[in-house]
Amino acid sequence: MRDAYHEELDAISDNLVEMARFVGSAMGRATTAILDADLKLAESVIEGDDKVDQMHRDLENSAIALLARQQPVATDLRIVVTSLRMSADLERSGDLAQHVAKVARLRFPDSAVPRDLQATILEMGQLAQRLMAKAAEVIITKDVELAMQLEHDDDAMDSLHRNLFRHLMDDRWKHGIETAVDVTLLGRYYERFADHAVSVARRVVYLVTGEHADEFEPEPAPES
Amino acid sequence: MRDAYHEELDAISDNLVEMARFVGSAMGRATTAILDADLKLAESVIEGDDKVDQMHRDLENSAIALLARQQPVATDLRIVVTSLRMSADLERSGDLAQHVAKVARLRFPDSAVPRDLQATILEMGQLAQRLMAKAAEVIITKDVELAMQLEHDDDAMDSLHRNLFRHLMDDRWKHGIETAVDVTLLGRYYERFADHAVSVARRVVYLVTGEHADEFEPEPAPES
Repeated sequence: MRDAYHEELDAISDNLVEMARFVGSAMGRATTAILDADLKLAESVIEGDDKVDQMHRDLENSAIALLARQQPVATDLRIVVTSLRMSADLERSGDLAQHVAKVARLRFPDSAVPRDLQATILEMGQLAQRLMAKAAEVIITKDVELAMQLEHDDDAMDSLHRNLFRHLMDDRWKHGIETAVDVTLLGRYYERFADHAVSVARRVVYLVTGEHADEFEPEPAPES
Repeated sequence: MRDAYHEELDAISDNLVEMARFVGSAMGRATTAILDADLKLAESVIEGDDKVDQMHRDLENSAIALLARQQPVATDLRIVVTSLRMSADLERSGDLAQHVAKVARLRFPDSAVPRDLQATILEMGQLAQRLMAKAAEVIITKDVELAMQLEHDDDAMDSLHRNLFRHLMDDRWKHGIETAVDVTLLGRYYERFADHAVSVARRVVYLVTGEHADEFEPEPAPES
């Protein structure tokens, strides 16, 4: 049987996994909303972000209560502090999904994404969602190998981001400035979302291996 | 005389103030670098970010050591946890100053900012620096009134950000897509930097008044 301390810690971990799944799904739905110009879906993502914020606050309160009551030291203390940081990453990821949905809402009934970029945005959205699903799995399994996969996936995201910029900078760009601005921001939102998923996985790696995640802070794409 | 616990807490607070001053100055210098197309200055900002990352790691380690050794509860515990969050805000602000400097480096020997937007970018850069200077002062003084001023300053930042977008979207925009992309990202970097300064001030307010800062999460400008 597990003691009260570890039960509380498990509950925090479960909540992190739930947050990661929620924001991963939010980013998937925001991507569909922007590609299909689906206002209802966009609004549901925008409203849904309140739930993420609430989960983040609840998790913070649980973690702080746990610190106060159980007074953990050494590794146990690092686990709780790291959970607080992961929660902040996930809360911010929720904001980014909401930002994508807000672009969809702003341009409705048009799609903010021109046809020749829809495949790239779809790929970025799907990759973002997969990264977050893997981050959730890393929280559950503490699988360092899987965490390393996220680094490769993030390279793929950077590559998609670079493609997007190449397309934007191409002399044949014919979609005007407004669309260029939208696409620039969308690219940034997906890239940052992926960074947060990678950051969550790295924090788990740090807890398992003792190697500090911040020393491998993701670089922004060269164009940004 | 202060006890060991409060001396350690004061040291953490001093380090936060030093970080805030450092990143505020970095954003000021990054702005000069981009307006003057000053490659050397841009590179010094880019390299200087390592120092911010190190300060962040040191602060985290001090805070965790303090938690382990002193086992604070209630308000004292909240102060330490909040310091960790402020440090994360400041570390991220340093990244954003670095991003501005990277745009300057990428476009050297040109300036990324066309003449007719230089005044707006200068204003955004100066406002960002002032916001961070005030955030540092709020950490020192715990002055709730001053913290409220940051909300107004942030409204001014949002207004500058909207001006920037209006300018971009204007049919008379003649600077091409590459510059539009640069200006879009610069606007986002300044806005996010300001958000982090506001966030630092709000966290202090929360410690002083008990009112939760996250409930007043800054909204992005409508266009972003």
